[in-house]
Amino acid sequence: MKATVYVRLKAEVLDPQGEAVRRALAHMGVDGVRGVRVGKLIELDIEAADVDAARAMLKRAADELLANPVMEDYEVVVGSSA
Amino acid sequence: MKATVYVRLKAEVLDPQGEAVRRALAHMGVDGVRGVRVGKLIELDIEAADVDAARAMLKRAADELLANPVMEDYEVVVGSSA
Repeated sequence: MKATVYVRLKAEVLDPQGEAVRRALAHMGVDGVRGVRVGKLIELDIEAADVDAARAMLKRAADELLANPVMEDYEVVVGSSA
Repeated sequence: MKATVYVRLKAEVLDPQGEAVRRALAHMGVDGVRGVRVGKLIELDIEAADVDAARAMLKRAADELLANPVMEDYEVVVGSSA
């Protein structure tokens, strides 16, 4: 079963990497970029009895390893590739 | 206008970061994870005349800055948040 965990910085957390990308794009002449936020995309191939079991497994993985709950939010999508 | 660029390692490129995540999950007792790939999720707030202009801008940003075309593929989604 395919699953994806999207990890994003919380809205109130500054993103220096995103800001660096925004500036680099402006220097390249890519105009009109007002803001950039960089997150993670974690794609997993898992064995689970059903979608509920998969979601429970992925919630534990995200809470304990993939995301930092102080600074990041995450979203779990089971069975999708994007 | 909101846009997202998803950057993934090409299928034939080894992903040591993903493999480290897979092993860490196994050590935590999260069983059944066969494979993990880690990519990037770049969310942009852009000003563009229309969706075509936004896509052209984002294609240039991805080709020249956000993705490494030798090792990575990217996907551009305009107007979506996930």
